[in-house]
This record gives sequence, structure tokens and C-alpha cells, in this order.
Amino acid sequence: MTAQPSTEVSTAIGQRSLGDPSLRFPLSPPLLTGCPATSSEEMQYPLEIDYDYARVPRDLLRQPPLPGLARWAPLLPPLVPELSMGEGGTALIESEAIGRWLGLDLPVWLKDESRNPTWSHKDRLNYCIVSTAVKNKAPGIAVASTGNHGASAAAYARRAGLPCVVISTRDAQPAFVHLQAALGSTFLLVERDARWPTLQRIIDETGFMPASNLTRFHTGNPFGPEGYKTIAYEIWAQLGHELPGTVVLPTGYGEMLFGVYKGFRELKALGLTSRVPRLLSAEPIVRAPLARAMAQNVAAAEVTGPGSIAAGIACTVSSYRAAVALRESGGRPLTFHDTVLREAATQLANDGLWQEFSGVAGIAALHEAIQRGETIEEPVVAVLTSTGLKEMPATVPPPPAEPVSLDRVIATLKKA
Amino acid sequence: MTAQPSTEVSTAIGQRSLGDPSLRFPLSPPLLTGCPATSSEEMQYPLEIDYDYARVPRDLLRQPPLPGLARWAPLLPPLVPELSMGEGGTALIESEAIGRWLGLDLPVWLKDESRNPTWSHKDRLNYCIVSTAVKNKAPGIAVASTGNHGASAAAYARRAGLPCVVISTRDAQPAFVHLQAALGSTFLLVERDARWPTLQRIIDETGFMPASNLTRFHTGNPFGPEGYKTIAYEIWAQLGHELPGTVVLPTGYGEMLFGVYKGFRELKALGLTSRVPRLLSAEPIVRAPLARAMAQNVAAAEVTGPGSIAAGIACTVSSYRAAVALRESGGRPLTFHDTVLREAATQLANDGLWQEFSGVAGIAALHEAIQRGETIEEPVVAVLTSTGLKEMPATVPPPPAEPVSLDRVIATLKKA
Repeated sequence: MTAQPSTEVSTAIGQRSLGDPSLRFPLSPPLLTGCPATSSEEMQYPLEIDYDYARVPRDLLRQPPLPGLARWAPLLPPLVPELSMGEGGTALIESEAIGRWLGLDLPVWLKDESRNPTWSHKDRLNYCIVSTAVKNKAPGIAVASTGNHGASAAAYARRAGLPCVVISTRDAQPAFVHLQAALGSTFLLVERDARWPTLQRIIDETGFMPASNLTRFHTGNPFGPEGYKTIAYEIWAQLGHELPGTVVLPTGYGEMLFGVYKGFRELKALGLTSRVPRLLSAEPIVRAPLARAMAQNVAAAEVTGPGSIAAGIACTVSSYRAAVALRESGGRPLTFHDTVLREAATQLANDGLWQEFSGVAGIAALHEAIQRGETIEEPVVAVLTSTGLKEMPATVPPPPAEPVSLDRVIATLKKA
Repeated sequence: MTAQPSTEVSTAIGQRSLGDPSLRFPLSPPLLTGCPATSSEEMQYPLEIDYDYARVPRDLLRQPPLPGLARWAPLLPPLVPELSMGEGGTALIESEAIGRWLGLDLPVWLKDESRNPTWSHKDRLNYCIVSTAVKNKAPGIAVASTGNHGASAAAYARRAGLPCVVISTRDAQPAFVHLQAALGSTFLLVERDARWPTLQRIIDETGFMPASNLTRFHTGNPFGPEGYKTIAYEIWAQLGHELPGTVVLPTGYGEMLFGVYKGFRELKALGLTSRVPRLLSAEPIVRAPLARAMAQNVAAAEVTGPGSIAAGIACTVSSYRAAVALRESGGRPLTFHDTVLREAATQLANDGLWQEFSGVAGIAALHEAIQRGETIEEPVVAVLTSTGLKEMPATVPPPPAEPVSLDRVIATLKKA
């Protein structure tokens, strides 16, 4: 439990289909393979959580955006307050340097999600998922992930006293291997193609709740993306109860994209704002299934393509919820090249902030869009997702064997 | 600049000697080798910053404890708002599990300083130091550090556009080597004994401002510890404007210990509270110069002894400011063994939180004190200082070569 959580309870009333929003299902059991009514072999539609907005306290969203998601409890699924690790309440940092590099008129606002309990945005999602698992008496948590998602799921599961199995691959970053060992997860390293069948079999045989997706097109756990709504609440509060023109987000399966869109939609529905900012997704150009789906005007797309240094978001399928977020916010999909991503990471480090490559995707994609002459509505918020500490090489190069000449160093420093 | 910083200016009026508090020096130039009047070859006394408390806005400390230290500007040295990276505003997390492990009556409150811009408490200090360097037109920043202190100084220097030289040793953690490369610091690896002479020579020849200490007994940069006062302001606010009974802190040279003490002293001086919580320092028992100084009733002590896995706080000298903080808060020095520290880190990971070893020092020291039968005034706040991601081994062990039997894994999960 974090300090001073809200004592209000959730106003959640059911799971609503995104495939047909007129369809609502009970809150329990969680529907973990998409909408059962509108999904087919060809396409799977996610669900979202529906609330009784009339029962939401009028001043809830006007509170200071401090850490601890339980403070937004009426607008989230039923939470277990004791599970909170003070997720959220992350800093919004004004960067003139990044604004200049992008060629914008104004500084850019950076929402630094590396300031979370496991140092990524995923904590907002997993606090909701593990709370849902506890409320539904799931015997454990299972997640297929090579990175932040699995790290965060494992931490919340551990805190809840639930066993957690993380299905990863042999090329998992050392930082995550190390972290999973510290958290005492069951950590399975399988071939890439074996991840989903392994997850499915574990779910089937153990009854563990999945914290990741089980369908061909991404549907996921409908309770997770709700946690990301709080990013929108916080941005609005941190800008002095004003909206930005644009929010750009690193985008894999689009859970954060949808959550942030839904948060802004709720601010409007509750009468606190009169519009929704344009949301822009940022995908590696080598795959970019969401950009493909939008271009082809289909619900979701599957692509092939080489990998990206933005490993956390180089997905081969998109989700319908991501398309909804872009379309309903008047936004659009952006892409980036790895070369620009590296340059964006360097520009950000020059401003003191060191992110993993996926975390800088929004800035890289914006840079390419502006270079192409696209118009971006300011002010811009770019969501940064995770610390650069997680992308350490397995072996750090040893320091130079040659003794360094202090005279030469000092001469160089004097010229700097 | 972070969102909505305070527009109030600093009420700082000078540098006050801790050796003789009746002595006050101007705010500039910064006195970087201790109090010039009371220090001698045998003992060096630090300075602190003095304020015109009558000019501090009455409601300043009643604002919500959000990120961005500039919001406390009247009670801090003159800051450069644009340098802020939204430091501070870190979560305070209630832990029943740690309270139980310690044998306390109440849950323990954990102040998680890994939620800062470079994922350690040091950002509060370095924002103040680099601001001071900019205000005093220093041409660069120089710091002797193998860890968090240097990482943080480098980030703020980079953001300020100042060159930064970090003097480290060949056993620096890979995470820090990696981070310094990302931030573009000049990173010198020297023998342990060569660190201070190298720093001194660089300072002398370049005029760079030191972010670390230049004297035998620690005096340091007097502007830095002021940043730690905000931890006290935040704790008081996060507990609903109530004080804890005890605050326990990982302690090396005692800059954070003194800063937190001073923050509580100011809350009392400004009429907001009627007492100061007991502050307890936590040092590795293999060295523990502060515990030695307190036992011998001297201003500071120098010790020898083997190293500790709590590398960030295994110091061989103490500072007078640390003794002041313990004495004036009615506190005392605690120590811990590395075996207990490992157990404390595991207990904390079982609660979902993964810290570097130094970060868990407070919990380990408390555990030993309570096992000895010492009385601890509750509620207790333990300050955690940095992420476990920074203590990754240089080479992570490869995953097992044997294929894992999924049947066996599932059988184990079912029994969990």
C-alpha cells in the first residue's frame, strides 16, 4: 500500500467488446482470448473495461498526480491496494534541446516512465493484471516476454505471493535474466516460435493467469491497458490542467497507446476537457504492423521483417485497439529507422536522460515525420518507457590497457 | 525545467560553518575544502547553506510532494530551473512483509530513491551542485566516484552543457562504465589511491567544480546535501503531514543523513512540526567510521578494514556533519554484516523491490539492531537508494544448455 491511496472503490461494471461496443460481458471471469462474440479465426478483437462514470467522484482527476495508482481507483479495475509499489506519478520534463533537434517551435515534454518500480511503463499495466489475478483467485501468473513486461509481471506477482513463470528466449538481455533471478521467477528460455505454445500449455494445465497475449492478433489481458490511462490523467495535471497538441508513444502491441487514448477520452467524457490530443504511434519501420493495418484500412495486420534495436516494440502483429486509438484521436502511425533511433538516443543522453532504445522511439519517429514535412500540433509530449541500464551488453569492454596521460586529459578538458 | 516549478527564488544567504555555527561566509565563492576558519590539518569541518527563513512562503512545505526539486526553491541554494530532470517526488511504499521480517509492530515505509533521473538518490545532490557550478560559471564538473554519484553528476553536467570528468577505478561496475559512455563523460580509470590526487590536480589546473570531496575528513561541496532536505519534506507530506518515529539511511560520508536531518529541523523551525524523528545511520560493520567517531565522541574518524558488498557506502572516513545529524536528532549509528545485507536484499525482492546492496543497508542494520534487542520508535521509514540493475555482473551466466522438461516445470508450478 502506498501513502494516502484513494479509499474509493472501482466503478468498473464489465468488459466491453471493442469489436462491437454494444456488447458487454461481466467483470469476471476475465476474457483472456479476446471478445468471444466478434472474434473469428481471421481476426480477434480485444475487450476494454467499462465503468459507471456517473459514480466517479467529480474531483477525482483534479488531485495531484502523485505515485500510487490506487489513488485513481474509481476509474481502474478492482485493485489490491497492498500490491501497489507506488507506480506512476512519473516526472514530466521539459526539454528545449530535444525540441530544437526536432525543429519544433516549443520545447518537448518528456514523460519519463523509467521512474517506475521496475523502471518501465509496464508497472502500470501489471499492477492492474496482478490485482485482477488476486481478485479472481488465480494460482499464479504466466507471461511470455523477453523484457520489461516480464520483469514487471514477476515483481508484482512476487509481491502478491503468487508464483510467476516467465517464458523468454536465449537472446534475452542480461539485465532481465539477472532481474528474474533476483525476483525468484521460474524463467524458461525457449525457441522464439515455442513461446506462445509454451505459454498456452502452461495456462491450460495450471490455470495461471496470463499477463500476455494468447491470440494471433493481439488481444491480451483486458485489465492491463486500463493502468495506462493514468499516464493521460497525469499529463493533463502536470501541464496545469491543459492538454498537449500531440502525444507520441513507442508502440508494440498498442496497449499503452490505447490506454493513454482512453484516459484522454475519459477526461473529455467527464467534462474536464473539450478534445483529445492527437496520438501518434512509433514503430520500427522494418515491421510496423500497425502502420500497415492503418494503410490498408483493416482491423489489424501481420507482417514479416528483420528485427530492430528497439527490441521491445518490434512486433509482427498489431491489435485492433491500437487502430481505434489512432483513428478516434485523429492521430496516425509513424515509423522510424534504427539509424535515427540511435541518433535520438544520443540526443537524449546529451540532455542527461539515458533510455533503452525502445524508449526513444517516439522522438525518433517524430524526427523523421518532421523531416518529411509533416505538421505536428504543439505542444508535444513524448513518452519515454524504460532505463538504458536494461540494455547493457553481456560483456562490457575492458578499460584501455594503456595508462592514460593525465597531462593530455587536462589539456583536452581545458579546450572543452 | 519540470512542469510547474516554483517561481519563488532561493532565500539562501550564505555558507555557515558546522565547526562554529556563529561563522557565516558569503554564498559565493563556494567553499570546497571545508570551513576555512575552524578546519586544521587534524580535522576538517563542513559548511551548510543558511537561509533567511523569515522570507520562506508559509505554505511552501504544504504543497504536494511532486517531482522537480525547483518547487522547493526558497529552501534550496540558487537553482537553474532548466537543469531539473524531475528529480525527487519518489514513492513511499508501505511494506508489511519487511515490517514482519524486522519484527516490528507496524509495516515499514520504504522511500524508493531508485525512481530518480539516474535511478539513485544522488540526483537530488547533483542538481544542486551543477546548478551552483552554472551560477558560479565553473568551466566543468569533476568527480571521483565509482558509482551513483559520478553517474548523476555526469548526467546533470551533460544537461548543463558542461564537460564532466569522472575519476573511477578499474573495478567500477559495468553498468556505470556503460552509463558514462552513454553520457559522453571523460572517464578515467586510476588506481584506488590515485583518485584524490588526480581529482585535486584536475581541479587545480582546470578550475572545474568538484562534485566530490577534497579533504581528508569528508567536507564535500556544501551545496549538495541541501538537495537531500527534500526527502524529509516529502516523507512528512506523504505520511499525511505526520512524522515517523525513526528514519534509517544507508550511510557513507553522511551527506544524505545530514540533508534529511536538516530538512526535518527546518520543518520544526518553520513551526510545522514539534520534533525531529530519530535518524539512524547504516554502515557496513567492516569499516563504519561514523560508528567509531560516535563511540569515541570525536568529530570524525578514519578506519581501515576490508571491503563490503555495499560498495557505495563502505567508506574509510566519516564527516562531522553525519555526527551532528545523529546527535541532534537523538539518533545513533547502526552497522550491518554483509550476510544480513544479502538476506535483506532477498526479503526486499520477495516484496517486489530490487535494490543494489547499498540501497538495502538501512533494513539490514535495523534487523541486526532489533535482533540485539534495541528499541526502535515506530513508524519507521527506511530510505532505499538505488536500483539493482546497477549491480549486474560483468558476465551473466548463460542459460542451462540442457533442454528443460516442460512437464516437470508444470508439475512444479502446480505444487507452488
